[in-house]
Amino acid sequence: MTDRVITGTDLSRLRELNSLTVVRALRDQPPATVTELAKLTGLSRPAVDVIAQGLVTGGWATIVEPGASSVVGRPARRYRFRATAGYVIGVDVGGHKILALLADLDGNVEHTARRAVAPDADPAERLAALDQVLASCLRASGKTAEDIWAVTVGVTGPVDASGKTTLFTPLPGWQTVDVAAHLSDRFTCPVVVENDCKLAALAERWQGTARDANDIVFLLAGMRTGAGLIIDGILRRGYGGAAGEIGALKAVRWLAAPSHLEHCPGVPATVNPDDAAAWVFNAARDGNRDARTAVLRYVKDLAVGTAALVLALDPQMVVFGGGFSRSADLVLDPLRRELQKLCLRVPDVRASTLGADSVALGALRLALNEVDQRLFTVGLSAPVAPRRD
Amino acid sequence: MTDRVITGTDLSRLRELNSLTVVRALRDQPPATVTELAKLTGLSRPAVDVIAQGLVTGGWATIVEPGASSVVGRPARRYRFRATAGYVIGVDVGGHKILALLADLDGNVEHTARRAVAPDADPAERLAALDQVLASCLRASGKTAEDIWAVTVGVTGPVDASGKTTLFTPLPGWQTVDVAAHLSDRFTCPVVVENDCKLAALAERWQGTARDANDIVFLLAGMRTGAGLIIDGILRRGYGGAAGEIGALKAVRWLAAPSHLEHCPGVPATVNPDDAAAWVFNAARDGNRDARTAVLRYVKDLAVGTAALVLALDPQMVVFGGGFSRSADLVLDPLRRELQKLCLRVPDVRASTLGADSVALGALRLALNEVDQRLFTVGLSAPVAPRRD
Repeated sequence: MTDRVITGTDLSRLRELNSLTVVRALRDQPPATVTELAKLTGLSRPAVDVIAQGLVTGGWATIVEPGASSVVGRPARRYRFRATAGYVIGVDVGGHKILALLADLDGNVEHTARRAVAPDADPAERLAALDQVLASCLRASGKTAEDIWAVTVGVTGPVDASGKTTLFTPLPGWQTVDVAAHLSDRFTCPVVVENDCKLAALAERWQGTARDANDIVFLLAGMRTGAGLIIDGILRRGYGGAAGEIGALKAVRWLAAPSHLEHCPGVPATVNPDDAAAWVFNAARDGNRDARTAVLRYVKDLAVGTAALVLALDPQMVVFGGGFSRSADLVLDPLRRELQKLCLRVPDVRASTLGADSVALGALRLALNEVDQRLFTVGLSAPVAPRRD
Repeated sequence: MTDRVITGTDLSRLRELNSLTVVRALRDQPPATVTELAKLTGLSRPAVDVIAQGLVTGGWATIVEPGASSVVGRPARRYRFRATAGYVIGVDVGGHKILALLADLDGNVEHTARRAVAPDADPAERLAALDQVLASCLRASGKTAEDIWAVTVGVTGPVDASGKTTLFTPLPGWQTVDVAAHLSDRFTCPVVVENDCKLAALAERWQGTARDANDIVFLLAGMRTGAGLIIDGILRRGYGGAAGEIGALKAVRWLAAPSHLEHCPGVPATVNPDDAAAWVFNAARDGNRDARTAVLRYVKDLAVGTAALVLALDPQMVVFGGGFSRSADLVLDPLRRELQKLCLRVPDVRASTLGADSVALGALRLALNEVDQRLFTVGLSAPVAPRRD
């Protein structure tokens, strides 16, 4: 329609955008040739060739030399995203344990550190345990804090804009604890705090049973029931970080649901309250009538809050996760039947495949998202750990 | 970092993108000079000058010649988006009325047509009334169907991917009615069908009380209660189009809520059931004790479902809309008090400012979105009505 004056600034910006385009293509792919990258990015082969060499020099990519091959002609070299340019840590600060995962920029876990913590531990004890877990994680993997590009810490309770659980948390004394501030003398990179249910939902979509879904209601089911919501492919936090807290509403029965298990007749006095639910699920599996009734009553109550979320959001999928997901064999069918009665359209109902590590794994994913967001919005610079703003 | 080979295809694409950038800037702005457009778009003045003239020739922009001015030097001409290049229609097919609005591409309403319809009208009657309203709307505004770039029809009940309300609708016989197909011999442009609560939510964010919010729970409150959800600035339909239907769950009490008004002691036998609620609200305003109790009971039930949505989504704002919003003076304060008891964080609670036209207005907005989406993704062509794919 018109002629266009191309300026020097336009060209330099175009060059940076094209480099980012190639990095992004490398990031999502197995090692790729220049020809493959040109096809993926829509850039010309000569342009990709020059960019890829620049990315190797800059530390963003490595060359995978072709092996011996029977193909006629010289096989092409491939480029691979240099996932070991940096590392991220995801931590789950739970009631009973602290679990940390350290991974490279592709999310490959290089080390796992775990430590039990008493449910009634005060904040100082819990933070000391966190420090020990992080220190052992770095030490065992031969990394220093400077190698870490992002840390995400999962906690129980809605996390507000200040990274604290001021509205509510079952961790004793934890309401005003500022984990990010606590870790700021150890790490210079961004430290993000997030709610455990939300992180477990992220993990389930990343590596779990919800990989093929964009609209997910994730249930973190245990002696407490929480939810994480992914809508149109994005984890939703809500305006104040408190999305998914529907369990606080008495009418939807999540507060009452686990008490059917806790107070099931026949639970031996020797079983401590934290293990009562596991005992009931096992007994139900063995045909114990009281246990089966308790499980069905649990599911009936669980279904009310789940139906509220399903009717509100009309998701593609409900994922039953958290500690109770080990007993999904007893829960899924009756849950589907209850939802059939209560909902207009029943989504796919599945069991989590990630088990007890899902919160730490989701924390890892959020840390990687943080890295990618900086990488693809701030613009391409040398691959070093970012500093907090 | 690297040199970049610029190809002919790149340049032509860049030119089209730049034209679109200027159209988009014009679309969101009062008339602007080339200098202003250059600043807004980041393009150079000479480039914008050429593009703007091209847009005038192409029919996308008009020139606003400067008036007499005391400023030294010749004042600059301004360019304005040519909003009359096309028109859109938004329709509300309700239980009691059909309302159509015809507007230009800036959303300026040029004509409003309204027609009462019996609540028990069968689909053929209701469709005939719709045809009459649309015909009178076109006739009165001197337009033909070819001038219309998009039509959106609002209906009651969740709208599925086929544009039908197969899951549920209170309109008699309407479950399998295909409004889009019915209108396809009259209009060649895209015809979209959408749920009334969702459209009213869109309208409230466009021209109503929620203009400054991105996370909104909108309540369409009347003898039925529905919800429309805007999350991160986007209307959410859900996987199957049934988001917001939480009212179907008995436990959250929306099904029961209006019955407190309908069955309030003292409603005269001469008042028909559809007007009973209005009578009760008026009586409550006049101090009638039974009526005040009925209103409080209504609000108490309304608050349960509202709290479920607030706890699930943690919105910035709850908007009380629909027919009952005329009585917001009696509802808002007790609603806030109930939410205070039930929620972790109480959002801003406001009354709708749009009243009975909100559904049709939201339909207009969705039609404009449809136009913009084609405009800014398909690429710039001559300004004529798009045809359905």
